[in-house]
Amino acid sequence: MSDNNDLRDTSTASEDRAGGVYVDTQAVDDVRDAVAAHNAYAVEKTLDDLDPADAADVVEQLSANETQAAARLAPEAFGGDVLAELSDDALEDVVESLNPQQVADAITDMELDDAVQLVEELDEQFRVGVLAKLAPDVRASLESSLKFEEDSAGRLMQREFVTAPQFWTVGQLVDHVRLADEDNLPDVFYEVYVVDPAFHPVGTVAVSTLLRAGRDTALSTLMSTLRAVVTPQMDQEDVAYLFEKYDLPSAPVVDVEGRLTGMIMVDDIVEVLHEEHTEDMLALAGVNEAGLADTIMETVRSRAPWLAINLGTAILASIVIAMFSTVISKIVALAVLAPIVASMGGNAGTQGLAVAVRAIASRDITSSNVRRIILREISAGLINGLIFAVIMGPIAYFWFHSLPLAMVIGAAMLINLLIAGLAGILVPLGLKQFGADPAVASSVFVTTATDVIGFFVFLGLATLVLL
Amino acid sequence: MSDNNDLRDTSTASEDRAGGVYVDTQAVDDVRDAVAAHNAYAVEKTLDDLDPADAADVVEQLSANETQAAARLAPEAFGGDVLAELSDDALEDVVESLNPQQVADAITDMELDDAVQLVEELDEQFRVGVLAKLAPDVRASLESSLKFEEDSAGRLMQREFVTAPQFWTVGQLVDHVRLADEDNLPDVFYEVYVVDPAFHPVGTVAVSTLLRAGRDTALSTLMSTLRAVVTPQMDQEDVAYLFEKYDLPSAPVVDVEGRLTGMIMVDDIVEVLHEEHTEDMLALAGVNEAGLADTIMETVRSRAPWLAINLGTAILASIVIAMFSTVISKIVALAVLAPIVASMGGNAGTQGLAVAVRAIASRDITSSNVRRIILREISAGLINGLIFAVIMGPIAYFWFHSLPLAMVIGAAMLINLLIAGLAGILVPLGLKQFGADPAVASSVFVTTATDVIGFFVFLGLATLVLL
Repeated sequence: MSDNNDLRDTSTASEDRAGGVYVDTQAVDDVRDAVAAHNAYAVEKTLDDLDPADAADVVEQLSANETQAAARLAPEAFGGDVLAELSDDALEDVVESLNPQQVADAITDMELDDAVQLVEELDEQFRVGVLAKLAPDVRASLESSLKFEEDSAGRLMQREFVTAPQFWTVGQLVDHVRLADEDNLPDVFYEVYVVDPAFHPVGTVAVSTLLRAGRDTALSTLMSTLRAVVTPQMDQEDVAYLFEKYDLPSAPVVDVEGRLTGMIMVDDIVEVLHEEHTEDMLALAGVNEAGLADTIMETVRSRAPWLAINLGTAILASIVIAMFSTVISKIVALAVLAPIVASMGGNAGTQGLAVAVRAIASRDITSSNVRRIILREISAGLINGLIFAVIMGPIAYFWFHSLPLAMVIGAAMLINLLIAGLAGILVPLGLKQFGADPAVASSVFVTTATDVIGFFVFLGLATLVLL
Repeated sequence: MSDNNDLRDTSTASEDRAGGVYVDTQAVDDVRDAVAAHNAYAVEKTLDDLDPADAADVVEQLSANETQAAARLAPEAFGGDVLAELSDDALEDVVESLNPQQVADAITDMELDDAVQLVEELDEQFRVGVLAKLAPDVRASLESSLKFEEDSAGRLMQREFVTAPQFWTVGQLVDHVRLADEDNLPDVFYEVYVVDPAFHPVGTVAVSTLLRAGRDTALSTLMSTLRAVVTPQMDQEDVAYLFEKYDLPSAPVVDVEGRLTGMIMVDDIVEVLHEEHTEDMLALAGVNEAGLADTIMETVRSRAPWLAINLGTAILASIVIAMFSTVISKIVALAVLAPIVASMGGNAGTQGLAVAVRAIASRDITSSNVRRIILREISAGLINGLIFAVIMGPIAYFWFHSLPLAMVIGAAMLINLLIAGLAGILVPLGLKQFGADPAVASSVFVTTATDVIGFFVFLGLATLVLL
């Protein structure tokens, strides 16, 4: 009977887990009600009953005020396991409501890389207070990680990893791992790094390979060559690229002398890929940063700067239009049609831009093919220009019964889509060349170019031909 | 002396690997030259000397024609290890140039999930020829994977995994793994799934935990609860979400009866995340699909459809402008200023849209917070509208010396940024509701709304106030 129950419990649990794709909105409501009722026990119980990752999802659903209230009410519900899973902005809200001792306790339970992410969110003074409450060894590893730049491999790496000299057998390695102090071993590891006498990594052995091999097998016969080595200064995007390219479960981090100093695990890279995805999408659309718990004013602040820049470029385009006031006042059709030329250019430019930004991020554009890619973008722009010139010309003709006007808009369309093709590839490549992130500012430059040139070419040609 | 050499070789190799962030353009040039000289040996030698992932990078740098020529010339250089690393479009170019036997040989060397990706690229007739050349067991697993929809978990999963009943000890499991037929074990695995008598997964044990434990330890004492279970029908995006949320190294796939039927590994998920990132960026910009080796005509075809849709919406906006021809012919300043209102609206709408698309993808918007998020977006739109009304009004006043005109553009800016805020959140949520991908079509709807309404409000108010 109890066996039967066990089975049923298990299968229900499995179904619940498969439902992990969606947030448990019942739990969100429960926490919200508990916070409103100042019921600390209910907050803690609801969150504790969930998998830490699910509890973090629930917390992320709350507004900043609710999160702060929940953390003040039931600090015990926000242990290291939950904090490690929280998004940066929810994390900030929680730690603001905890005291230094509570934050220090949470950090002690966390993996180093998660702890670093938490400490990054603390303001200077609070950080000093938290660090003072930590055990000296934990503080030391945290401080050494924080010496590396944000978004660098140094911040992602953990200090625990398993190494073995080349001349060991499987049996020697297994005994070493069993006897090692728990604190010096990672909780989970997928590979053992084989090192030479100077502590340079020379190869890896998958843990599953070790499991399969007999105790007397020499490690050197099981070892795979290193596919990638990371340095602490590397940008996390470059590290993610290596993981993706070489299908790595983990990567060794080496210091300037090539000595093994850390390990980065693939689950941290999955996190990085998610972050980079969001950053790129927001950058393309001109948003500085966005969190779900952002207040209205934070939302305004994240968007207004790019809107201000857009206003500047829109005014620039308007100045171009104003240069042609005379011809517009005589032929109003020009005011009607000009935005079509600009809009098509902006659209085509953004298309090329998005393709280029992804190709640059995937290291797909190199000196070997850059000429071919640029030529392709220009040619595609020219052909699309021809296509839409041939479509738009007749539309303008039947609308305004003017052959010269039809020819002017056709020519302007052709030229602006060509410019769009050029700008869509050259702007991101140029920004990359100057060390800027092509995802961030390209959009503004490209649409400014297509707006200004689109209006200028169309209205300029109209002045020449129609006046 | 030889020891010394070993050391130096190692450190050079490490540095080269750290350089794996960049494509080996020398090798690209070498392959290109070898293809031009019809030198099969040089093509094969250059690619074979590289890590398969680096060889794939090199091939991806070639144009479609060069890739096809290289594959025809040196088919042996395109074994399963290289094909598994190629992007879809480069893969297509290669397999088009191989014969069914060569493709079948490559498939035999590949993991099932990689083989599925390859077979997906083959056209119907060629696929039949390739399948006929495969060993019956390989063909059977391929065919059963292909029964699942594209981009589903069923296509991603592998059929080999390691299981153990709950009552086993570590020693029993290790012996089982050592004695098992190599063909029935995955090359690498990070977890063992503990199953009940009905073959339902009930827990996992990390392989590194097994390594640390004594032979007599009961698996049940080492087992962690399952954090996620996948079904073959799940969309790969949902699977990726589970991996990210629960930091999974692998996930069990279960059939309708809850029985273990496959395993998905995290490195496949890293690939999925990369694909989804590209798809989202291209969708936001209105590009159907893009590959580096795309020809000019493929590039045109991937972009022209969205440009055509954009032309339609731009004409719609122009029809609105045409409705106000009379007032524009009297006050040309309206033609100068109207695009500013439309442009600001389009920009603000795209900002909100990008934030919403990412929040939806991250399951951050749920019934628990959707009202707060919508309210925030509308409020932020209103505040940004106020800010830019206050900035643009005076600019228009000093430019055209008309207080009514300044007030009209201020009011139009306020209204259009409010509309942008509304459209930026409601359009993607609405598309999601109807089962559409919010990343794909949102952009068109949002900018159409802000263009049409921007022109209508600005020119309409101007007609009322200024005439």
